[in-house]
Amino acid sequence: LLKNLDMPAPPPGEVLVKVLRAGICNTDLELVAGYYPYCGILGHEFVGCVETGVDSLIGRRVVGEINASCGKCSICSMDHPGHCPHRTVLGIVNRNGAFAEYLSLPAENLHVVPDVVSTDAATFTEPLAAALQIPKQVKVGSATRALVVGDGKLGLLVAQTLHLSRCQVVAIGRHAGKLEILSHRGIEISMSNDFSGKGFDVAVECTGNQEGFAIARQSLRPQGTLVMKSTYAGKLTFDASSFVVDEITLVGSRCGPFTSALELLHRNEANVESLIHERYSLVDGIHAFERARASGVLKVLLEMD
Amino acid sequence: LLKNLDMPAPPPGEVLVKVLRAGICNTDLELVAGYYPYCGILGHEFVGCVETGVDSLIGRRVVGEINASCGKCSICSMDHPGHCPHRTVLGIVNRNGAFAEYLSLPAENLHVVPDVVSTDAATFTEPLAAALQIPKQVKVGSATRALVVGDGKLGLLVAQTLHLSRCQVVAIGRHAGKLEILSHRGIEISMSNDFSGKGFDVAVECTGNQEGFAIARQSLRPQGTLVMKSTYAGKLTFDASSFVVDEITLVGSRCGPFTSALELLHRNEANVESLIHERYSLVDGIHAFERARASGVLKVLLEMD
Repeated sequence: LLKNLDMPAPPPGEVLVKVLRAGICNTDLELVAGYYPYCGILGHEFVGCVETGVDSLIGRRVVGEINASCGKCSICSMDHPGHCPHRTVLGIVNRNGAFAEYLSLPAENLHVVPDVVSTDAATFTEPLAAALQIPKQVKVGSATRALVVGDGKLGLLVAQTLHLSRCQVVAIGRHAGKLEILSHRGIEISMSNDFSGKGFDVAVECTGNQEGFAIARQSLRPQGTLVMKSTYAGKLTFDASSFVVDEITLVGSRCGPFTSALELLHRNEANVESLIHERYSLVDGIHAFERARASGVLKVLLEMD
Repeated sequence: LLKNLDMPAPPPGEVLVKVLRAGICNTDLELVAGYYPYCGILGHEFVGCVETGVDSLIGRRVVGEINASCGKCSICSMDHPGHCPHRTVLGIVNRNGAFAEYLSLPAENLHVVPDVVSTDAATFTEPLAAALQIPKQVKVGSATRALVVGDGKLGLLVAQTLHLSRCQVVAIGRHAGKLEILSHRGIEISMSNDFSGKGFDVAVECTGNQEGFAIARQSLRPQGTLVMKSTYAGKLTFDASSFVVDEITLVGSRCGPFTSALELLHRNEANVESLIHERYSLVDGIHAFERARASGVLKVLLEMD
C-alpha cells in the first residue's frame, strides 16, 4: 500500500478525478501475482468526481475507459485506439490507477454517470462493458445456445448480458450461492461437476484456468466459438488438431463499450449490486485484496467517499 | 502395405471407383506417426474412374469429397454434413482410402472432372478445396495483408488461393526452391529466418508445428486472425493472456468447397502441377511414403493407371 502520494498533476487534455469508489477485479489479483510487470497504483474499475480539467465535467460523477491511446499511430487511425501499441492502461500499464484518492485520465475517456445510476452500480461499468464486447465480436441471437463457464464476477456479468442479447444461456460454476443470482433472472444454471452439456454454439471461458478452458472446448458443437474473457497467468495447452478438425473459432475478448454498459445500468437491466460482497476503506486495501482473493467472495469495493 | 485385398462391395447409394492417381498428404504421414488411431487403407486425395453404381457417372473421371455423413443427425440438418459426428472419412476415419486399386464413396460425394483438367492436376482438388475454405471462414479482400507460414504443399496452395482472392500475400518458409513457385506468380516471399514482419491482418499456419504457430501469432496486428490449416500431432501451447489482450481470433480450418477448386483448375488459375516432385506405382507405396516425408520434397503421387 502506497501512502502520502503526491496529487497527480494531469497533463494537457487530461482531467483530475477524485475517486469515490473502486472495484477489485481478478486482473488486479493476477497483476499482484505477477501476470504482468506493473509497479504503479492498481485499480481500473472506478467511479469518480471531476475536480479540474474540463469545465463542463467539473463536479460530475464519471466513469472512465481505461486505455489511453496516442491517437496518431496506424492502429489508432484504423479506429482501434484500445489496441494502440503506445497506450497506457489505467492501473495496468504505465498509468497509475484508481486505488488512490485521485487519478488522471484523458477527458475523452470519461463518461458521465446518469443520476439514476448509483455509485455502487456505476463501479461495474468497466466489467459490464467488457461483457458487452462479446456480442460485438461474435454474432449471437435467440437461436444461440451459449455456455458461460465460471461463476466469478465476470462470468455472472457475461451470463446476464448474453441473456439480455436473447441467447439461450447455461451458466456453470462451483458456487451454488453465486449461480443463484443468475437463476433469479431466469438463466439456466448447473454445477460444473454435474455438467456434461454438448453442442453449444458459443462457450465463454471466464475462469482463467486450464480446466475451465477444457470444459468450454468440450461443450462446443463443430464450428462453434470459444470466447476467452479472462486474464491468464501463464500459458494454456490445447489439442490443436481437434480445433482444426472441428473448425473451432477461438476469440480473445477484452474491453468493451462503456456507452452500452451505462445504458444497461440506466435501464436497470443488469443486476450488479447483488455482486457486491464486501466494502473497505482505502487504508484497509491490503485486507480488501486478501478478501477479494478468497474463494466464494464476489466483488470487493474500496470506498473513498 | 496391404496386398491382395478384396474388391470393395459398395453399399446402396455408393459407387465403385477405380483409382487412377492419388496424392500423399501430410495428414497421411501424421496418421502413420500415430496422430489418430486409424488402421485402414490410407489416402484421401485421388482421381478415379467410376466403374459401377450410378449409370450417368460410369466411365467418368471423378474426384470425391472425403466426409461421408449420416444425413440424419442435428449437425447434418444444420447443413454441416462435413462435421457429422457419425461420419466416416476416406482414408482417415472408418473408411478405406485411395491408396488402393478401388475405393467406394457415396454418389453425392463425387464430382466429375472437366475434360480440360489433367488427372495430375485434378489430384490436387481436395487440398485446393481445403485452401479455399479460408476465404469462406475469414473475410479477406484487396485490403487484407495475409501471411502464409510454411512452404509445404498446403502452404503453397493457400498462398496461391489468397493471392487469387486479391489479398496482399507474403509467404515464408525454409526452402527457396519451393517459395520460387510462388514468386513466379507474383507473390512476395521471404525465408523464415530473415522474416520479422508485423501487423498482418491474417496469418495462416501451414507448418503444423509450435514454431510456425509462434511466428504466425507474432506477425498479427491486434484483432488479427490466425488460421490453423495443418494437422498437429500433439498439443500446442500458447500465451492465452496475449490472445485476450490483443483480441486475436484463432480459426481452425479443414475441408473446403470442391466445386470452387475444380473451377480454379478448369480456369488454370492455380499452379498445382509444379508441386509434383515424384511419382511411384502403388507397389512402391512404402518407398513413396519415405520420399514424401523427406525434407524439401513436395507432392508425391501414386499412379494406378
